Amino acid sequence: MKEAKIEVCFSPALFSFYENHEAIVVVTDILRASSAIVTAFMNGVDRIIPVGTLEEARAFKEKGYMVAAERDGIVRDFADFGNSPYNFTRERVKGKEIVYSTTNGTNAIHLASTGKQVLIGAYLNLSALAEHIKMEGRDLLVLCAGWKNKFNLEDTLFAGALAKKVLEDERYYTICDATLGAMDLYEAASVDMMGYIEKVAQRHRLKKNNLDDVIGYCHEEDLTALIPVLEGDTLVTLPNSK
Amino acid sequence: MKEAKIEVCFSPALFSFYENHEAIVVVTDILRASSAIVTAFMNGVDRIIPVGTLEEARAFKEKGYMVAAERDGIVRDFADFGNSPYNFTRERVKGKEIVYSTTNGTNAIHLASTGKQVLIGAYLNLSALAEHIKMEGRDLLVLCAGWKNKFNLEDTLFAGALAKKVLEDERYYTICDATLGAMDLYEAASVDMMGYIEKVAQRHRLKKNNLDDVIGYCHEEDLTALIPVLEGDTLVTLPNSK
Repeated sequence: MKEAKIEVCFSPALFSFYENHEAIVVVTDILRASSAIVTAFMNGVDRIIPVGTLEEARAFKEKGYMVAAERDGIVRDFADFGNSPYNFTRERVKGKEIVYSTTNGTNAIHLASTGKQVLIGAYLNLSALAEHIKMEGRDLLVLCAGWKNKFNLEDTLFAGALAKKVLEDERYYTICDATLGAMDLYEAASVDMMGYIEKVAQRHRLKKNNLDDVIGYCHEEDLTALIPVLEGDTLVTLPNSK
Repeated sequence: MKEAKIEVCFSPALFSFYENHEAIVVVTDILRASSAIVTAFMNGVDRIIPVGTLEEARAFKEKGYMVAAERDGIVRDFADFGNSPYNFTRERVKGKEIVYSTTNGTNAIHLASTGKQVLIGAYLNLSALAEHIKMEGRDLLVLCAGWKNKFNLEDTLFAGALAKKVLEDERYYTICDATLGAMDLYEAASVDMMGYIEKVAQRHRLKKNNLDDVIGYCHEEDLTALIPVLEGDTLVTLPNSK
């Protein structure tokens, strides 16, 4: 029986139209926040506190926290580092609690918190994520962080990849045009993902600031089974993914 | 020289992030408002007054206007007809002024009015529309009416079709992910458009109410060179498209 539905929301500004208190909400910001968060947990970070404003991030810094903060891809002067996954090395983050503020990702995480469970999704943990969702059997809502509330392709492709994997379970269905479109775009792009990603706007933004070295890494699949989950105001990992 | 940009906005709720006072804004609601509006002009309607609320539509009716009004595809009891293109026959509409209120389309038209020029786009007038835009040489912003502020595929495919045609003019460029995605989806769908449209959500909504007889018609290209344009609060046709 078809009992669990899949929907994709292309922008935080559309979230209210998709909101589903019963759903697992997967927040994704492939270039680069969600890939960086998953990487931080891979490298042993203990907890990540996502904050919305730079003022909050600065206040945490003054209280002695390690802070990752950027806007438009540029590290803020008070911060320890920005949101390149390469910054979250084991030496720096193992056992630490990190405060994290980004252009699009943090806001999306806060919005998503009306869902039953909020997970952070990236290609890096794609299969583990799909398995967990299918095990739970709940509705799935993928929230793309987008770019300043606009649609972006890299998050959409990931949403399509995840939807396809979850739809393999016959209890799942979708009647959501955004999900169908995302899957078709993923289908077209996955033949040559790096070639396709060449044309997305965010690739050009990152390149302009010499931050595009991580694009290949951010599209590598299944480097980990760790799944970041929001607990209260803090990201930790799901117990069964440790 | 690349001097005019193309952008696509997938939902009225995202319009503020794409707003461009210098652009020609093409509003589209393929199933069925924009197809019906173009059809009404093909059949000789004089003017169409788009109104947002059913209360406004009812007030116009009481003043003696002919009124088209529906919500969720269902004709309202006080209205003369709903928004099937087949309702706007020559016998009924020739030389008339019609008040029009629909679920998604009317609101989109009002939002778009901050642009330099607001046009109504459908497959029925696709090539004429592309020619007019290229002649003007201005930025192009396609506003998809969507479904209750959600993304929909049929408007997206049309946006992709129009963007492709306009991009043939080498003065035009796009760095907009939504435009790139819409063109790729159109590319994939256009091989078998009716097969593709089978899966979109709106097709199922219309079918449920036996309103899906117009889907083939709404995807016919270039039946007219007429281009509806917003003048003040009223739709007429561009002088050069008469």
